[in-house]
Amino acid sequence: MFSSDAFLVSNFFTILYLTGFKPLNPLEREAYVLVLKDKKIIITDARYRGEKCNNDAEIYFLNSGERVGDVIRRICNEYLVKTLGCEADDLTWDEVLMLQKIGFQIIPISHAFSSQRSIKTEEELFAIKQACHIGDSVLKDITPFIHPGQTEKEIAWYIEKSIREGYNAELAFDPIVAVDSHAATAHYNTKNGEGEIKNGSLLLIDFGVKVHNYCSDITRMVGVGSVSEEIKNIYTKLLNVQNKTIMYVKNSKQLKDIDEFCRAELQKNSLPNFNHSTGHGVGLEVHESPRINALSIDNKKVGQVFTIEPGVYIPNKWGMRIEDTITISLQGEGEALTQFPKNLIFV
Amino acid sequence: MFSSDAFLVSNFFTILYLTGFKPLNPLEREAYVLVLKDKKIIITDARYRGEKCNNDAEIYFLNSGERVGDVIRRICNEYLVKTLGCEADDLTWDEVLMLQKIGFQIIPISHAFSSQRSIKTEEELFAIKQACHIGDSVLKDITPFIHPGQTEKEIAWYIEKSIREGYNAELAFDPIVAVDSHAATAHYNTKNGEGEIKNGSLLLIDFGVKVHNYCSDITRMVGVGSVSEEIKNIYTKLLNVQNKTIMYVKNSKQLKDIDEFCRAELQKNSLPNFNHSTGHGVGLEVHESPRINALSIDNKKVGQVFTIEPGVYIPNKWGMRIEDTITISLQGEGEALTQFPKNLIFV
Repeated sequence: MFSSDAFLVSNFFTILYLTGFKPLNPLEREAYVLVLKDKKIIITDARYRGEKCNNDAEIYFLNSGERVGDVIRRICNEYLVKTLGCEADDLTWDEVLMLQKIGFQIIPISHAFSSQRSIKTEEELFAIKQACHIGDSVLKDITPFIHPGQTEKEIAWYIEKSIREGYNAELAFDPIVAVDSHAATAHYNTKNGEGEIKNGSLLLIDFGVKVHNYCSDITRMVGVGSVSEEIKNIYTKLLNVQNKTIMYVKNSKQLKDIDEFCRAELQKNSLPNFNHSTGHGVGLEVHESPRINALSIDNKKVGQVFTIEPGVYIPNKWGMRIEDTITISLQGEGEALTQFPKNLIFV
Repeated sequence: MFSSDAFLVSNFFTILYLTGFKPLNPLEREAYVLVLKDKKIIITDARYRGEKCNNDAEIYFLNSGERVGDVIRRICNEYLVKTLGCEADDLTWDEVLMLQKIGFQIIPISHAFSSQRSIKTEEELFAIKQACHIGDSVLKDITPFIHPGQTEKEIAWYIEKSIREGYNAELAFDPIVAVDSHAATAHYNTKNGEGEIKNGSLLLIDFGVKVHNYCSDITRMVGVGSVSEEIKNIYTKLLNVQNKTIMYVKNSKQLKDIDEFCRAELQKNSLPNFNHSTGHGVGLEVHESPRINALSIDNKKVGQVFTIEPGVYIPNKWGMRIEDTITISLQGEGEALTQFPKNLIFV
């Protein structure tokens, strides 16, 4: 698979993808996987003794005081490994220095598994569809209860409780609930803010569900009471652009074409450009390969799953975004997996 | 502060520590901070336009298509930076290669801010105390409702709801609720498991609260109905070891002494050794510097906050751990911040 005798995987999600092993904290380095010619060896610490992984992997538990570099060296020597590929986009400089000291050749490979992970198997797609379906249901459940006086945080918490208590699923990420000018920050942090819904507010709701480790991602807009005609008009145009972009997917070859098309359509409609990607891959991570932006070098491929999410942001006033998670069908078309109606929701 | 003209910070928590800026996803690289002689410049993308930081920092928002390396080069040129320190334990190999291409000298520094972050200011300590206090209250609230037939996941969810709804705080980490043999896995993943409480079960509850970004960490044990005399006896011994270890802190100079003392006490009591550290620093991260284990090279210092958490684990049978978050007082003593009673809780 790689131009090395073996490959050292360090990324939390790639480890999960390859072995089914899932340590507690993705923020800490709790495991590595050595991918050898005919086996995968997970190296983790003894706190995980008893945890499971897929049948085609085995787990080595570090003894107290044992250094991971020594174990990697021992296994690599045993399997006559001379060159070791590693995830250059994940391994830290300290880890590189540690491996270089061991004495065999380390080869940096960026995004080694991104392409493979971006093409979903039927089983993966099934989990993503479930996650999208639950997201649709959550929107149906919670939107009727949105009203002036609520805070962004309260709504985010209702969404979370609905996902977790109502559907026994997990969050793909902390919901973004952003009212009026807050929504002009595309990545508004609801947990940091104190926004409250008023009559006439425009509300952005961006959240994702996780089922069997796979994510969905959806954004819908809610108008509370009387919303200005200007906003309604712009919303209609944006929705039109978003729908046309999804339709255009079948004609695209490279993913950057989709980004270009979307921005050109915005311009045709005299809408301002937005300052984020038109979309991103969705899978074990809510942001993964491929990227749908001007820098993307990937082609469209059957089985990819990514978002289409153009937005209009007017600083200090309001922001709107419409986002679906789509997959590339056998016919090369963009098939929306999130199916909650896309009209401006009025409450 | 460092032997370089400037320092590039990439770690999510160090960025939060130095600037108050908190991007949405600690798993993705969403910001860097350039620490110059007399200013700090946060570099992030335009999705965060509108977000805030401390007054002594400023934010540069990347324009669409603009590369972070180009911005770092431009700023460094402007400030006549020739040598740039960076977090070798955080920066990826790809990022190192990107910086090396820029043309100035990059200096790897491991855990550059760990020592500074490990000594808590009064304000930081206040937040940690609040988090500990809420943890105590949550235990008081939820333990009376534990009963046979409940699942581990249900109890974890009650803990989370109590923290978030009852006390308007956050989780420091996903609670570990582990019944009987599951608790023999020190880092048991409650979300992966299907454990159910039975009459006679021994239940481990390990959770943390986060208040104003600062964490607490506590573990207590619950006996459900009739628990064997053997377990009660071992629990009493373990509690004695844990208490003596906290008492011993005042006599220690190096942190590894505490680890050594704790394990020696276990041995004196004919209890098996445990396969994790005796403790870990707690602050913005639930696991941070210092480490209380045999490899630790740090001295005990006033203002440190760390856990003391010896355990006894009998594979396939049961596990127990008693954990407090403590701080080093002005007198050099270990002062427990978690104060929920440490007897075996019977329900």
